[in-house]
Amino acid sequence: MALPAEFHEIARQVNNWGRWGADDEIGTLNLVTDSVVRAAAATVRTGRRVPLALPLRRDGLQTGLAAGRIDPQHAMIQLNQELFGPGGVALNDDIVTLGLQAGTHWDALPHVTHTGHLYNGRPATTVTAHAGAAFSGIGTVGALVSRGVLLDVAGARGVPALAPGHAVGPADLDAAAEFGRITLAPGDIALVRTGQMRHALAGDRQAYGFPSPGLSLHTPRWFHTHDVAAVATDTFPFEIVPPEIDGLWLPVHALHLVEMGLLQGQNWNLEELASACAEERRYTFLLTATPEPFTGATGAPVAPVAVL
Amino acid sequence: MALPAEFHEIARQVNNWGRWGADDEIGTLNLVTDSVVRAAAATVRTGRRVPLALPLRRDGLQTGLAAGRIDPQHAMIQLNQELFGPGGVALNDDIVTLGLQAGTHWDALPHVTHTGHLYNGRPATTVTAHAGAAFSGIGTVGALVSRGVLLDVAGARGVPALAPGHAVGPADLDAAAEFGRITLAPGDIALVRTGQMRHALAGDRQAYGFPSPGLSLHTPRWFHTHDVAAVATDTFPFEIVPPEIDGLWLPVHALHLVEMGLLQGQNWNLEELASACAEERRYTFLLTATPEPFTGATGAPVAPVAVL
Amino acid sequence: MALPAEFHEIARQVNNWGRWGADDEIGTLNLVTDSVVRAAAATVRTGRRVPLALPLRRDGLQTGLAAGRIDPQHAMIQLNQELFGPGGVALNDDIVTLGLQAGTHWDALPHVTHTGHLYNGRPATTVTAHAGAAFSGIGTVGALVSRGVLLDVAGARGVPALAPGHAVGPADLDAAAEFGRITLAPGDIALVRTGQMRHALAGDRQAYGFPSPGLSLHTPRWFHTHDVAAVATDTFPFEIVPPEIDGLWLPVHALHLVEMGLLQGQNWNLEELASACAEERRYTFLLTATPEPFTGATGAPVAPVAVL
Amino acid sequence: MALPAEFHEIARQVNNWGRWGADDEIGTLNLVTDSVVRAAAATVRTGRRVPLALPLRRDGLQTGLAAGRIDPQHAMIQLNQELFGPGGVALNDDIVTLGLQAGTHWDALPHVTHTGHLYNGRPATTVTAHAGAAFSGIGTVGALVSRGVLLDVAGARGVPALAPGHAVGPADLDAAAEFGRITLAPGDIALVRTGQMRHALAGDRQAYGFPSPGLSLHTPRWFHTHDVAAVATDTFPFEIVPPEIDGLWLPVHALHLVEMGLLQGQNWNLEELASACAEERRYTFLLTATPEPFTGATGAPVAPVAVL
Repeated sequence: MALPAEFHEIARQVNNWGRWGADDEIGTLNLVTDSVVRAAAATVRTGRRVPLALPLRRDGLQTGLAAGRIDPQHAMIQLNQELFGPGGVALNDDIVTLGLQAGTHWDALPHVTHTGHLYNGRPATTVTAHAGAAFSGIGTVGALVSRGVLLDVAGARGVPALAPGHAVGPADLDAAAEFGRITLAPGDIALVRTGQMRHALAGDRQAYGFPSPGLSLHTPRWFHTHDVAAVATDTFPFEIVPPEIDGLWLPVHALHLVEMGLLQGQNWNLEELASACAEERRYTFLLTATPEPFTGATGAPVAPVAVL
Repeated sequence: MALPAEFHEIARQVNNWGRWGADDEIGTLNLVTDSVVRAAAATVRTGRRVPLALPLRRDGLQTGLAAGRIDPQHAMIQLNQELFGPGGVALNDDIVTLGLQAGTHWDALPHVTHTGHLYNGRPATTVTAHAGAAFSGIGTVGALVSRGVLLDVAGARGVPALAPGHAVGPADLDAAAEFGRITLAPGDIALVRTGQMRHALAGDRQAYGFPSPGLSLHTPRWFHTHDVAAVATDTFPFEIVPPEIDGLWLPVHALHLVEMGLLQGQNWNLEELASACAEERRYTFLLTATPEPFTGATGAPVAPVAVL
Repeated sequence: MALPAEFHEIARQVNNWGRWGADDEIGTLNLVTDSVVRAAAATVRTGRRVPLALPLRRDGLQTGLAAGRIDPQHAMIQLNQELFGPGGVALNDDIVTLGLQAGTHWDALPHVTHTGHLYNGRPATTVTAHAGAAFSGIGTVGALVSRGVLLDVAGARGVPALAPGHAVGPADLDAAAEFGRITLAPGDIALVRTGQMRHALAGDRQAYGFPSPGLSLHTPRWFHTHDVAAVATDTFPFEIVPPEIDGLWLPVHALHLVEMGLLQGQNWNLEELASACAEERRYTFLLTATPEPFTGATGAPVAPVAVL
Repeated sequence: MALPAEFHEIARQVNNWGRWGADDEIGTLNLVTDSVVRAAAATVRTGRRVPLALPLRRDGLQTGLAAGRIDPQHAMIQLNQELFGPGGVALNDDIVTLGLQAGTHWDALPHVTHTGHLYNGRPATTVTAHAGAAFSGIGTVGALVSRGVLLDVAGARGVPALAPGHAVGPADLDAAAEFGRITLAPGDIALVRTGQMRHALAGDRQAYGFPSPGLSLHTPRWFHTHDVAAVATDTFPFEIVPPEIDGLWLPVHALHLVEMGLLQGQNWNLEELASACAEERRYTFLLTATPEPFTGATGAPVAPVAVL
């Protein structure tokens, strides 16, 4: 369906085009300054590291929900090959084909476009099969390290996981911040936990994928107000699906990526992190989350790590 | 050629099999403890971040030197596709095929085997085309964050880059440590700069690849003595090629990966880091370098970041 | 399970090692002589062409039954790209990743090995990840044109399709030959129709794949006696699965490919051909079935055509 | 550059839009009728088969001339894997990634578009990254068997190969037809030999690719007049490059594919065929050349065979 007035109204409120100059390609990542990173490093107390990426493997998350995305197909091109003669060193080498958004990933800003445009008003046609995204491709992100905050929406509600129909709204985010005694600061990377990942970890990729709880149409304003640099969740579609407004698919994608220039992460495994934060009674940490720098790509795998 | 006595003598000296138990799969990464990471976080002073990965793109480093490795081949499977009807949100999605060791990467321990074995005495036959590496695949690495130290061998010698025939030896490493006023500590990740990357950055992948300066057969003992957790360089082959002993290819690979269980990184871009360290007069930093967790893979891309 | 005495007894009877010399790589394809092809061309009466390949597409036959085989993943690398300036000719170009045995295909002789050997007594170790099959790879087949004969086992029994548990035996093949008034001749390519393809054409890949009717352990002798050059079927596993002898998987593969050096085809769509043969009351035709010549591959897609 | 008046004048003369109905997707392949195929089969005299495809291998034809096209990258996913227990049958299985136009191939009609259209007036936008070509994709070709005619332009001129700057014109084609004593008939598939393939066979892919002799802008009228069904050549770019009119790249592609709906083949190995035709003093034969039916693809590999 065409985008309704409500969408456009929110878009006007959260729009960041021009905020960091007409040439800007990285949007809210501009909020991650050196001082933000210094402060993030200062949050480290125990040195405990929690990896947030799922394994990248053939038996992954894909069910056909996202047409054409494939789980990593790993194959060998050298197998204990004594390339330099018998009795010498033998080599193993491998190759892989994968959908760039198949596993734990960041969407690059041009992952979606609407009304002919991507972030900062650039034409949607600047994405081509030839070169991928000419602007704001995932390779423009560079190093991504900041303070991470776990907004454990499920934990705050005292449930292991939100119901599939649960649209995570501003009140949920406020409650999760209070639950974690988090004071949001500009440049934070918000990790929103719904608990939906439990299905994937239990091997039920169908239940994991759809329907799914997720961010509501009303959360972009919240992230905008708090000047969050990036947002990641533990779900496949990021936002709630089926959507809140019948026929209006992916409005949060459009608001975040196109209007705000805010990086989105999906399929992040936040289960161990939730336990660790609960144990340490602390929901802020140093987060390292640099995407693989595929030039022109509209998304990329990432192996994020929380350091507590 | 078959491995000579000199190789086996060094192997005996640096061997770590059983050091962390018969079931261990991660070798020297065991040295990266929580306290090492706490100390690493404490090195952050400015919050400046330096990305160390090269762009992942079709026009990459491969010249055919490593048979079958291919640079990332990026293609689109959705291009501004209005999947949900005209006027709605349009989607971009992409797919890639790449050699796992094509760009900036970590070798997993089973990347090489010798005399029928890989790290910790496991049979080389536990690597299969079917499942990749059953033990010590790159997916077993988990989170990799530690203190990084830049051993700027070229900088210490006052040259922009080492000559291709230069075998970096223990004396070079000592000089580089002194140059950077580095006191090595167990669990450090050593980044050895030769300056060879300049060829790649200038677009000359032939000159970059071969011949190449690199680590000498005599450096594994040095890393072993210092209990370094991992080593990365700014070259294609990691160690010097052609090799120091005629016909003995990849002995350092075999000593590090098989005998010591020490992770190796290649094609790391250390140029900006060298400048930053020189400017800040400090050659130690927080290093985040978690490989993409491809299950069973014998290597994986990584997007390392130094935080100064 | 280890191969039982019954298997080895049949193996002795059908073995062709050395029959065409110690250097031979193509086995029973040696039976396709110029005169066989002349005779095949002479069978053409109407000029009607029936294609026997299924479409190669993302939504293909794979269910995970054959671990790691993937359906063709098609993506664009140029999309109406005006490479030579605006207003000129625009280019489309594409890339694909696929399992070589994913669709309508030929197995090359090294697709299976047993007891350490492949066809003509060569060591199984001559297949490597490095180079694929050093001997008898699909690229050695060259041009494949001969007389095709449709052995419509289902048609001969008056049923649309055989039951999944039906092991097609020599009596079935005799009945089908009689049904089609076929006199087998050396060099013929036998197409054995079970009707199982109907499931795939109806979109039910699960029912299509497993369990499946297929060739019995007792048919290799029949093909051997008739000096058939190659055999293809309209099923996923070629032979009956689950197998006739509990635990003895793929014995027909081992007899055909390893012992006889007889090319096997799978996932051939014989439905339209069965109708055409019934209409024309003729079950012999010119068959063109040259596999794509992937060097070293252990199988390859083929787009066979029957010319009636 | 924009298409000049001369191009548009020829386009008007050879245009076939609507000739086989508004819904037609296969253009001049409509000329291959049953009677054409009967006649083609009747040309077979010796049964000699000449394969016309190059091997599909990593070390193929690509030099970067066609951006993003890659040679076949073959890898193993099963290697003598005893899937069913020790001592049983062991399996080999493989996977490949390739540019669909990398080797011996047919261009599908939508391989190029101009002025916003492809064959039969359909919008260029009907090709998408999502689904490939919605119309006239290579999968719509179906069975392709007809009479082949070898137009040995180099042979007719008594040279092993044409010079790179040689634009093959109508007079060349007439001379080659006379040289081969060929009377063209509607539905014929013309194979135009320049001898350029000799460079590729000698391992010099640079010399093979560019510059290249090839078809002149003035040949589409010739093929149109003779109602040829398809044309293939032994060169990389098909038509002469650099082009005859400065800046006007790929005009023959645009005339054949878009205006005429005529299938084009490239990288066909016509060397052995030229020898065979010379020996047999006969330049017409049965040609089988069914492309692999990749749904929506704008080209596909083909393994053509001439049967003499």
